[in-house]
Amino acid sequence: MKKDVKAAVLTRPGNIEIQSFPYPQVPKGGAIIRTELSGICGTDKHTFKGEIRQYVGTAQEITTPFPIIQGHENVGIIEEIDPAAKLEFDGQPLKPGDRVVMCPDTTCGDCWFCKHIPDYPWCNDIRSYGNSFSCANAPHLFGGFSQYMAITDKVKLYKVPDGMKPEVAVFAELFDVTYTLDKAKELYAFDGEGFAFGDTVVIQGAGPLGIMHLIKARMLGADKVIMTDTSQFRLDIAKKFGADVTMCLADTTQEERIEIVRQHTGGRGGDVVVECAGEPEAFPEGMAMVRKSGVYLIVGNFVDVGRTVPLHPHEICAKNIRIMGMSNHSLSGYGPSLRMMQRYGEMYPFEELITHRYALENAQEAILKSMDYSSSMKVVLDPWKK
Amino acid sequence: MKKDVKAAVLTRPGNIEIQSFPYPQVPKGGAIIRTELSGICGTDKHTFKGEIRQYVGTAQEITTPFPIIQGHENVGIIEEIDPAAKLEFDGQPLKPGDRVVMCPDTTCGDCWFCKHIPDYPWCNDIRSYGNSFSCANAPHLFGGFSQYMAITDKVKLYKVPDGMKPEVAVFAELFDVTYTLDKAKELYAFDGEGFAFGDTVVIQGAGPLGIMHLIKARMLGADKVIMTDTSQFRLDIAKKFGADVTMCLADTTQEERIEIVRQHTGGRGGDVVVECAGEPEAFPEGMAMVRKSGVYLIVGNFVDVGRTVPLHPHEICAKNIRIMGMSNHSLSGYGPSLRMMQRYGEMYPFEELITHRYALENAQEAILKSMDYSSSMKVVLDPWKK
Amino acid sequence: MKKDVKAAVLTRPGNIEIQSFPYPQVPKGGAIIRTELSGICGTDKHTFKGEIRQYVGTAQEITTPFPIIQGHENVGIIEEIDPAAKLEFDGQPLKPGDRVVMCPDTTCGDCWFCKHIPDYPWCNDIRSYGNSFSCANAPHLFGGFSQYMAITDKVKLYKVPDGMKPEVAVFAELFDVTYTLDKAKELYAFDGEGFAFGDTVVIQGAGPLGIMHLIKARMLGADKVIMTDTSQFRLDIAKKFGADVTMCLADTTQEERIEIVRQHTGGRGGDVVVECAGEPEAFPEGMAMVRKSGVYLIVGNFVDVGRTVPLHPHEICAKNIRIMGMSNHSLSGYGPSLRMMQRYGEMYPFEELITHRYALENAQEAILKSMDYSSSMKVVLDPWKK
Amino acid sequence: MKKDVKAAVLTRPGNIEIQSFPYPQVPKGGAIIRTELSGICGTDKHTFKGEIRQYVGTAQEITTPFPIIQGHENVGIIEEIDPAAKLEFDGQPLKPGDRVVMCPDTTCGDCWFCKHIPDYPWCNDIRSYGNSFSCANAPHLFGGFSQYMAITDKVKLYKVPDGMKPEVAVFAELFDVTYTLDKAKELYAFDGEGFAFGDTVVIQGAGPLGIMHLIKARMLGADKVIMTDTSQFRLDIAKKFGADVTMCLADTTQEERIEIVRQHTGGRGGDVVVECAGEPEAFPEGMAMVRKSGVYLIVGNFVDVGRTVPLHPHEICAKNIRIMGMSNHSLSGYGPSLRMMQRYGEMYPFEELITHRYALENAQEAILKSMDYSSSMKVVLDPWKK
Repeated sequence: MKKDVKAAVLTRPGNIEIQSFPYPQVPKGGAIIRTELSGICGTDKHTFKGEIRQYVGTAQEITTPFPIIQGHENVGIIEEIDPAAKLEFDGQPLKPGDRVVMCPDTTCGDCWFCKHIPDYPWCNDIRSYGNSFSCANAPHLFGGFSQYMAITDKVKLYKVPDGMKPEVAVFAELFDVTYTLDKAKELYAFDGEGFAFGDTVVIQGAGPLGIMHLIKARMLGADKVIMTDTSQFRLDIAKKFGADVTMCLADTTQEERIEIVRQHTGGRGGDVVVECAGEPEAFPEGMAMVRKSGVYLIVGNFVDVGRTVPLHPHEICAKNIRIMGMSNHSLSGYGPSLRMMQRYGEMYPFEELITHRYALENAQEAILKSMDYSSSMKVVLDPWKK
Repeated sequence: MKKDVKAAVLTRPGNIEIQSFPYPQVPKGGAIIRTELSGICGTDKHTFKGEIRQYVGTAQEITTPFPIIQGHENVGIIEEIDPAAKLEFDGQPLKPGDRVVMCPDTTCGDCWFCKHIPDYPWCNDIRSYGNSFSCANAPHLFGGFSQYMAITDKVKLYKVPDGMKPEVAVFAELFDVTYTLDKAKELYAFDGEGFAFGDTVVIQGAGPLGIMHLIKARMLGADKVIMTDTSQFRLDIAKKFGADVTMCLADTTQEERIEIVRQHTGGRGGDVVVECAGEPEAFPEGMAMVRKSGVYLIVGNFVDVGRTVPLHPHEICAKNIRIMGMSNHSLSGYGPSLRMMQRYGEMYPFEELITHRYALENAQEAILKSMDYSSSMKVVLDPWKK
Repeated sequence: MKKDVKAAVLTRPGNIEIQSFPYPQVPKGGAIIRTELSGICGTDKHTFKGEIRQYVGTAQEITTPFPIIQGHENVGIIEEIDPAAKLEFDGQPLKPGDRVVMCPDTTCGDCWFCKHIPDYPWCNDIRSYGNSFSCANAPHLFGGFSQYMAITDKVKLYKVPDGMKPEVAVFAELFDVTYTLDKAKELYAFDGEGFAFGDTVVIQGAGPLGIMHLIKARMLGADKVIMTDTSQFRLDIAKKFGADVTMCLADTTQEERIEIVRQHTGGRGGDVVVECAGEPEAFPEGMAMVRKSGVYLIVGNFVDVGRTVPLHPHEICAKNIRIMGMSNHSLSGYGPSLRMMQRYGEMYPFEELITHRYALENAQEAILKSMDYSSSMKVVLDPWKK
Repeated sequence: MKKDVKAAVLTRPGNIEIQSFPYPQVPKGGAIIRTELSGICGTDKHTFKGEIRQYVGTAQEITTPFPIIQGHENVGIIEEIDPAAKLEFDGQPLKPGDRVVMCPDTTCGDCWFCKHIPDYPWCNDIRSYGNSFSCANAPHLFGGFSQYMAITDKVKLYKVPDGMKPEVAVFAELFDVTYTLDKAKELYAFDGEGFAFGDTVVIQGAGPLGIMHLIKARMLGADKVIMTDTSQFRLDIAKKFGADVTMCLADTTQEERIEIVRQHTGGRGGDVVVECAGEPEAFPEGMAMVRKSGVYLIVGNFVDVGRTVPLHPHEICAKNIRIMGMSNHSLSGYGPSLRMMQRYGEMYPFEELITHRYALENAQEAILKSMDYSSSMKVVLDPWKK
């Protein structure tokens, strides 16, 4: 019989403890996954810091239900699975030993959003692994900072292509978030608006989310990619992954950055600007960097940090700007993301983005390291590391 | 020989004088139009009040070049025309005696915007009749508050359908501005986002711009239309033109209005919200009224009035909102607008929206009346009225 | 206890018999509907004539599994319902006595199409009431030519708005098929291609499907609508419902019809052409009627009638034509269709399209009448008519 | 003074003669280009063979006006230029010595298509260098099979990026034709239809047009690319440029090819199929290869070769296929095409696609060689080669 399962539990903001849970029974229609790696995401940092309100202003506004097991960027191996399970989104059969990634979000299937926009988890009752299931409730193991996860029949799994390492697959969720750029691409149908072939893309923030958008922009036909960040360490990695121009907030003024974008775009500004900074203050700078009738994608400001920025609605009108907010990602996007990550594995060595790898016992140190932008890119937890 | 031409000249904010100008020669490739009616628009009121900065934050930012002849919603009769003129956008032949409306905006034809998005006057050097040509320069008559207008070869004219009265045709420009809703309609291609058949449209502002959007929303397949305004007088007209629900800002709190929108939309909010209010303060209310993954069109905040509103970028992200700023209108939209205004003339009696008609001599009184929302809808100038 | 249920059974092409079936138990998660009206559709006529292959060239190609109870345009009253049922697509509660319409198509929910394009029944295992369920299998009552229908948990129902008569609601399915025009509308995002505000729409075929497209085209902002048919009787009804130009195939040559379309469109051809004729021979004429870079919607050629037409692929290329085939309809479209049918009930009196109403016993006579285009529009069966 | 200019003149189908023309004066607003290379295109071969009707079924149907100087895929050096010329589409200044490519099509600027869809040369009076200007009329030099070309003020030129060889730039026109794939990409906005990230693209024809589509599909995010051709020589080059699967018509039956496409796509068929074969007979095979609700782009059947194929309109309807015909290319696409060809020059060595290079004197031999698919890919003329 399996022994107890070890997990890192966030009992309240700022406090992570290692706890033991009973190894769970396979949920009906579900599975048990042995976690290989779990990435630390910006949302995890916000929660750790006590910025715990998500989806503010919507029907599904939630506050973190402590205690929780964090970790929603997960890759692992099927340990056990209900033979009747229909977990794999693309219909591939799953068996013990298969490597999978998961969509952390579960939806109700019945609300207006589930009925009308089913490919996106914009459900009125969205619940997410690593985020909004408390581990106080059985079967407890609802997050990746744990040796095993209990997968209910509401979860979508995706089989990892043969030969792909967990160090690459762990980026699948984050890479799928870049469907924002697919949207912008579609928007180009509109009279020259949106993301056209050969366009200039500006990305605010060179953390893992920004790097994913850099790679995706390339794959979708961007020409010039310009990136900003507070960390020269991260911008150097962005350069290595193909950014043409990088600007560090430590060395430049806002006016200089806006001017540099204009110099690279015939005076117009970026055709597409993507906010991957997670700070409200990035918004006014992005508005100034986007060209007239360009697209501004708001991707990083997912958590309410409690600060506002001043807006002239006039600017939106007079510049004909299109602003698209983007939370989550598409269910159907995981499969293509995995396939393309594999096809371009040599050109974009995702695994090199992992700068730090910690054991469960060091989860708190891992989160703190992930907040040190001057020396870390993606930090992952390996629940079986000694 | 023609006598001098009388025009109402705005010499500086708040001061209109009647001046005489020489009857001009027909510009090369152009025409002379005998003005029948010129509508007073929100922009005219802003300029009169001294809010004279337009397109702030873009390459074509301009400040009103006083003195000017205002008036850009114009209908008139061709008085003379260069036989070689190619003024009619849709290629219809024009001759003296023909009734026409005009696009007030002229463009350079060579800049990036003219090359890439040619159907919209988003030119880096946009110049507009009634707005940004000073009457200090010959041939002086660059606005509709004048008995005649000098039409250069850069202007696009549109022949008014046979049998359409000037009191209807004068709305062509304003009605074409509603291409914002066509855009929102197209956006519905995106996974249930945008303006679908049978959707609920909320319109902030029941002035002429709001009424145009009401009519256009109906023509494009809206079901419920909800409107807000500070003026019950205007909301009563909106009701007559088919608004299902109206809410007066004098009688309701912001919280009540947001709640009423939710009650009419299954708790979700409007699928499309259109800002036709012209006040920055409408923005936060509109953001709260739009449903998750809905579209918010910013149409009325065209002029920089110098005030900002606080924004949580988080709201845009977490609600997946799409915001589209819209200045101007499409060159190709005038023809269809005129045809459809004629087809639905009985259902939507545009001429009844004209509540006041003034002679040139009373231009200043006319502008002041147009600012009195409690008793006026569209105010027009008739330069030949005695 | 309920007595036996009477139904009209198509035992083989050309032969309808009245048979009795046991009143069924309520399926788990399902309901029993007392049929009020069932419309006869073009597909029913094809099946009756022995043209029984559908979806040829796709994974779901089927041949009619005789014996069947036909009837997929159904309206009725909930007789009984499983309290746990989640049948209403838009989440409205249902109880005995409620009037409902239904989507006749059931889908698997698991195949690639169900996962990627879930709003459309393009399933690899699509099965349809009135069409592809044999009544040889319990609970037998899978079609509207029956006093009652057994509704399984796979069916989507839609509550009919209060006050809407069954004679109107029976058109909901057919009206929803016009989402083809919504698609064409969205396509207008593409550089002037597609269905723009004020465009000319040509409809081949003035049967019920053609009339639905006429009404929908109007609701979405068409200007001129031009229709063709073999039956002057039907074209006269089209005129009454607002067609601007009608052309009878009995009185005109193909060359004349193409020329007339050109005369009405500045020599260009229709911006949108919709094939609602159901005959392959309509295709070359439609190709000649559509303007360069226009849209041609293929809606009526749903059943393989075994005949081909010659095609020059060159014409598609050189004219930049966009052709969109359309089977089925959207699940989310029923609700808006019903709401808009009610809103515009006075302008478009759908019930007047029902020219003939038959009792079950006269089902065969009804089908034959529905094939007589010279004197019938929509023919319906009323299973309770004496 | 410049000497006479040597050009290869097609006097009638099948007969090319070398003739001399006077060196022309610089046209007003125009330029003289010293031709470096001119590619031989499929259209040139059709014309040589006597298949001389283009745009059949449209207002601009034309028959080749012999004698002509062929050659519309041109790159050259500005020899002289009118200082007032505005020839460069993107507004870059041009001077003698600059390397440029050209859009061969000239348009009227006034017809409905020029007004409504201005970015595409879909003009009712399109006239093309190398194709529809007779060299019987001064200034004669309207094609690239000539030492110099006379460029009128109607032509759009594009400055070649610094450091790009003429052997690469000569592909700019052909590469821009792949905007078909950009269109298909935009179409993905439609409920899962169109060209999504990670999709499978099938290309019929591995000639230069097919190879351009292969490269562009990669740049826009295709996963698997499958190609067919009659020539194994060409398929081997396609493999080298990244095709995943190739199928030679000499070795496989149509049934086998369709089956192989299905095996690679989970049984569904290609998400996008592009016809670059130029033969009507490719159409039925492409229809069978495309998945339900997939996109079929007709690009190669530009010239009317006088043969038809049988079509079941039912197939279009029941499979929900979207077919898009595509002639020409976009004016705004040359600039991005050149930039991206340069960015990815190492990954896609365009110059290696040139298998044969001939002097003017051997123009007839060059055209014959270009028809030998078993041993040639792109054949170019070098008018200054000895």
